[in-house]
Amino acid sequence: MKYNFKITGFGYYLPPNIETSEQLSEKINKSSNWILSRTGVKERRVSDIDVDKMGAIAAREAIGNKRKPDLIINASGVPKQTIPDTSVFIQKELGYSGIPSFSVHSTCLSFITALNVAGSLIHSKAYNNILIVSSDRGTRGRNFKEPESASILGDASAAIYLESTVDKSGLIDFDMSSWPEGADLTEVRGGGTNLHPQDPQTQDRDNLFSMNGPKVFKYTLPKVYKMISEVLKRNNITQNDIDLLIPHQASGKALTAYSKYGGFSEDKVANIISTTGNCVAVSLPLALAMALKERRISKNNRIFLVGTGAGLSIACALIRL
Amino acid sequence: MKYNFKITGFGYYLPPNIETSEQLSEKINKSSNWILSRTGVKERRVSDIDVDKMGAIAAREAIGNKRKPDLIINASGVPKQTIPDTSVFIQKELGYSGIPSFSVHSTCLSFITALNVAGSLIHSKAYNNILIVSSDRGTRGRNFKEPESASILGDASAAIYLESTVDKSGLIDFDMSSWPEGADLTEVRGGGTNLHPQDPQTQDRDNLFSMNGPKVFKYTLPKVYKMISEVLKRNNITQNDIDLLIPHQASGKALTAYSKYGGFSEDKVANIISTTGNCVAVSLPLALAMALKERRISKNNRIFLVGTGAGLSIACALIRL
Repeated sequence: MKYNFKITGFGYYLPPNIETSEQLSEKINKSSNWILSRTGVKERRVSDIDVDKMGAIAAREAIGNKRKPDLIINASGVPKQTIPDTSVFIQKELGYSGIPSFSVHSTCLSFITALNVAGSLIHSKAYNNILIVSSDRGTRGRNFKEPESASILGDASAAIYLESTVDKSGLIDFDMSSWPEGADLTEVRGGGTNLHPQDPQTQDRDNLFSMNGPKVFKYTLPKVYKMISEVLKRNNITQNDIDLLIPHQASGKALTAYSKYGGFSEDKVANIISTTGNCVAVSLPLALAMALKERRISKNNRIFLVGTGAGLSIACALIRL
Repeated sequence: MKYNFKITGFGYYLPPNIETSEQLSEKINKSSNWILSRTGVKERRVSDIDVDKMGAIAAREAIGNKRKPDLIINASGVPKQTIPDTSVFIQKELGYSGIPSFSVHSTCLSFITALNVAGSLIHSKAYNNILIVSSDRGTRGRNFKEPESASILGDASAAIYLESTVDKSGLIDFDMSSWPEGADLTEVRGGGTNLHPQDPQTQDRDNLFSMNGPKVFKYTLPKVYKMISEVLKRNNITQNDIDLLIPHQASGKALTAYSKYGGFSEDKVANIISTTGNCVAVSLPLALAMALKERRISKNNRIFLVGTGAGLSIACALIRL
């Protein structure tokens, strides 16, 4: 065991407003069948409230009647605003004050990265109770002139409450790699110092999400496969020893690949994309929280979190509940 | 010792283009004396290149002829763009590929927070060689209609290379607290999901830096003093045992407070604000790297990093070189 910790709370929030692919089809001039065949998304949620409020709803569920956390980590894809950090706004919504708060950011992989950081901080006794919150409102950044990427995004939030433990649960292994040669395949070019919102050169599309899904898929497939194989091998286990594979919900095609090429049986791959879409950094903790709530996974189960994100980055975390 | 590590490399970059307060005074309709009395800034640097290129210059100096790092952490205040993460663009500029990269964000305190995270990751043997890069281009977000905050910002980058060690050097102690009730005192309200660049409600000033310096100072002063006192006390040391206090270069007044109220003699407080301005998350590692380069600090010295950031957050790190 790399880092001992126990998930003692979880929560998620799916905004009540559902947008079906029929409804979206008018905005992007494509049929709902086109959307479904390209992305696997039948419907997605569109939030009317911002990421801090969304995150706090999931966080309150995760905290339940436990003590307030020692540390709040925001692990989202896109912030509420440039500064202050989103973690502080989530803390504000929770009604707390004085709790150290910061973000760990690696786009869609922020939750896996934050889990490794939180695990390390608990292992080294810096904190005992850590709240990780992911909250993304990808629909705010859709470019309706780019039909495929506009079809994929959905809004959601999820939160996990971690505690130190002497049990044999926690993070068994973690791996990550980043490949800058694929940086331009998934972008929101605006919002920072590069194409600043006030820069006359900045065009509307620079502030919106852009992704070349097929190229990302082609580029990452062998790298993801290699990483999974290596992690399984160095832990002396096979795909059959994993109780649930929880992939980032990148696209319908990417999800199918885990069973088609990755050696995992389809019933052991968490697949929620048809009703949630790609929820940026939230997809991973959302699928985890949903599986916990549905009691699809339980104590002692081995869970494999894995995904690709803008960067391009690839990361995975093997955990024991 | 909380986390053992050794700083084996450091670097910084100050863009060649100097803007004096005389030059700035025309843009904000205030005299250079007004600027100096309010902020303590005589001149600041204005970068023509973006944060990734700036960060890579400092990083190359920090890496020197050492092996490539196992992990790259971007610890800046404002990203290059919304996605991918800035760490990947810094890696790209360095000519690397495959190195795990992510950001730790807590606005001006990102470097202290990242130092604690990196220390924990080295302590728990997740990584042996970690590169932390801070790079900020605050001048991109100046609001010339808000003279005081517009006068304070300057551009710079700095990088630190950390290695695992058996020496008695590393992070002795760390503390952080975040106070959301002060969230509206230092803001860039745009750039995220709240006031999205495409939102018709978003005004120009929402995309620019806004700070109520006097209120931040008044609110944080007793909290900073309390945190410093507690950290010194629990380590059985006094201000006199600190070889150099390195504060975030928030403002001239904030820097003076460390000797005026904080019990540190003025010659033991790193004060670079008059020639660099407030470089957002870079001020702390910049002052550290400059002190190392000038050999003002050396092996076995006790260094106290401390600062306030948007949030409001307060953090400190006591390290032994």
